[in-house]
Amino acid sequence: MQASIITVGDEILIGQVIDSNSAWLGQQLSEIGISVKKIWSVADESDQIILGMKQALEETDILFMTGGLGPTKDDITKKAIADFLGRDMYFDEPTFERIKSIFEKLGRSMSPSHHDQCMMPNGVEILFNSMGTAPGMLFRHEGKIIISMPGVPYEMKAIISEIVLPMIKSTSSIKICHKTILTACTGETTIENMIGDIVNSMPPYIKVAYLPAIASVRVRISGTGSDEAKLNDEIQHYTQLISQKLGDIVYGYDDSSLEQEILTLAIQKDLKISTAESCTGGAIASRLVTVPGSSAYYMGSIVAYDNAVKQNLLHVPEETISRIGAVSEETVKAMVIGVNQALQSDVSIGVTGIAGPDGGTPEKPVGHIWICVGNKDIQETFLLKAGKNRLKNIETTTFYALDMLRKFILKEY
Amino acid sequence: MQASIITVGDEILIGQVIDSNSAWLGQQLSEIGISVKKIWSVADESDQIILGMKQALEETDILFMTGGLGPTKDDITKKAIADFLGRDMYFDEPTFERIKSIFEKLGRSMSPSHHDQCMMPNGVEILFNSMGTAPGMLFRHEGKIIISMPGVPYEMKAIISEIVLPMIKSTSSIKICHKTILTACTGETTIENMIGDIVNSMPPYIKVAYLPAIASVRVRISGTGSDEAKLNDEIQHYTQLISQKLGDIVYGYDDSSLEQEILTLAIQKDLKISTAESCTGGAIASRLVTVPGSSAYYMGSIVAYDNAVKQNLLHVPEETISRIGAVSEETVKAMVIGVNQALQSDVSIGVTGIAGPDGGTPEKPVGHIWICVGNKDIQETFLLKAGKNRLKNIETTTFYALDMLRKFILKEY
Repeated sequence: MQASIITVGDEILIGQVIDSNSAWLGQQLSEIGISVKKIWSVADESDQIILGMKQALEETDILFMTGGLGPTKDDITKKAIADFLGRDMYFDEPTFERIKSIFEKLGRSMSPSHHDQCMMPNGVEILFNSMGTAPGMLFRHEGKIIISMPGVPYEMKAIISEIVLPMIKSTSSIKICHKTILTACTGETTIENMIGDIVNSMPPYIKVAYLPAIASVRVRISGTGSDEAKLNDEIQHYTQLISQKLGDIVYGYDDSSLEQEILTLAIQKDLKISTAESCTGGAIASRLVTVPGSSAYYMGSIVAYDNAVKQNLLHVPEETISRIGAVSEETVKAMVIGVNQALQSDVSIGVTGIAGPDGGTPEKPVGHIWICVGNKDIQETFLLKAGKNRLKNIETTTFYALDMLRKFILKEY
Repeated sequence: MQASIITVGDEILIGQVIDSNSAWLGQQLSEIGISVKKIWSVADESDQIILGMKQALEETDILFMTGGLGPTKDDITKKAIADFLGRDMYFDEPTFERIKSIFEKLGRSMSPSHHDQCMMPNGVEILFNSMGTAPGMLFRHEGKIIISMPGVPYEMKAIISEIVLPMIKSTSSIKICHKTILTACTGETTIENMIGDIVNSMPPYIKVAYLPAIASVRVRISGTGSDEAKLNDEIQHYTQLISQKLGDIVYGYDDSSLEQEILTLAIQKDLKISTAESCTGGAIASRLVTVPGSSAYYMGSIVAYDNAVKQNLLHVPEETISRIGAVSEETVKAMVIGVNQALQSDVSIGVTGIAGPDGGTPEKPVGHIWICVGNKDIQETFLLKAGKNRLKNIETTTFYALDMLRKFILKEY
């Protein structure tokens, strides 16, 4: 079964709102074996909506529509659907009673726009909205299905999760299964070459996709078929083969993250972690604490942006800085030893470099960044040669530093 | 002039990647008077790409395409374009030389997929990509324009900002002028009410839009006309009226940011700034250093995630923490005094709170966050009552803290 999605709303076209609804919907549908063939974002205009519906239903079996935000815009979508299907509108009493009772509970009175929410195209099947007043709508039309929902994300998600997915699952025979392998600090082309033989040996109903981001590539294995258990076994088999081949560049699977894996490892091995950051300026710390529960292992950071802080709080010798510079292997090692002691931790990250866009020299150009991970006995260093974009350099450094931390823990503890 | 956008990539259809490229592109185009009529997301399949191109060029004058991520997928898009236009491919020597020199600098060797990046459809106009190896491509076809770019966001943005927008602006006769007023920590409805009279007095060719983000609203004034100088004068006039009315909630204009304004103020007044962060975990520090040149005033941060760090490095009395808790007005004041002294700065920010999703109590629920800004003599505090979402709480706190710092500097120095 193939689906399409139409999101209605000028605010998406002018970039005021990012269309995260479609991404969520695409995820949910692909997990139950419906592939989304196309996503359209169209203006709040009846003829645009109708043209989109026409094209979508020519190409796919089921069409999901999410309205523009707010009662006024939902109204345009609803009328366009009625026009497209050639159906009249009627006043739906059960919807009216439900909205009325919600407002009575809130002690507020209904506005005319809430009256409009009760007008429905004939032949609608109402989809209960547990999160708001406007219900979802299902239409059957020439063997195809149209599902229209409000654009408010949590209302749309409630209708899909509570009503639509259970309905589709109970009738579908084709299954799609996924597994995603997360890799760090290795280029897409290198990974493709490493696992090319395995990928070429796969049956045609199993496919591999490479999804690169800064300093990381996600390798997604997907399979389509009718026997879900067999499919999952096969995908599991290829996941193992690929993971073995890729070795320690694999840091996790599916929705995990480097910071999540570090939290798990640190708690498992009862380690306290700290960081000393110069050019990343707190980016490593703030990424570690995005994961709930990070206070269980993360002590904190000394963001030593100024050299005086490197000397006074991290005890990097003044002599080191004046002789060889704040951006040097010696300094980054001293930073790790200093923060490890000052914050009473087991393992620490240190970073110092030239993030750019200015401040480079021929010897130490922009993007010249020292990373160190270690404990009181061992310090491992790496010189990252990054580019000229400040924000990208900070993000790349953060990722490399976290991956070094992960590998250090796995090796030493 | 009307535009459409096609984003190519299975990863968008299955929801692994949110299409933020289109939103950014929609914003940029609407600011120079090009309205985006439709956005398509299509699969990495030649026939889907060609069908999308056909429909897009029937409906609009200019088509922007962003490829799937990575050399492999760019390739599908490029071949689909060549097929659609009925053009053969050729090997583009200048592109090859450029990629070769990039790899020589990096000390790496080119892979076959980088060779493929040099294959171009005949008649292409190359758009220089300052951020990556794959160039953008422009095609003219039956009076319409097709612009195809890599899907990597910062590469796409570089090509648009540096090449495409200047090119479009230089050929257009209708001028669109903008001025954006940046406001902090005040709701959209409040701002609308404050400036309603001014907005109602504007001529019809000048419009106001409210663009809300976390803890901030951008008020954008746009005018359309042929006389650019007159239009700019009028917009300047209304910008002044609105700014006067809004008072000190205005922190800057256009592409500025709170961190940029703080850098300017700190350098102007010769102040050294430091931060002490608990629940934000380095987010304030990392936001301050996103601005190039921040090392001129920013000393660094003590991210005191663990209470031991609050005591040992920030000298928050153990008695304070055990009596009234680490999340308290007394603690946050002590953090500011402590970091101010430890990092030898003039003004400091302190933050301690419960970011969530767990860890709340009836007295101090999730979202209960103390912020303090001060120097050795004065400390001003604010209790933020935020929501339940961890990442949103961290972002909101960061914004409030930076705005308090801005106002403190303006008042005290």
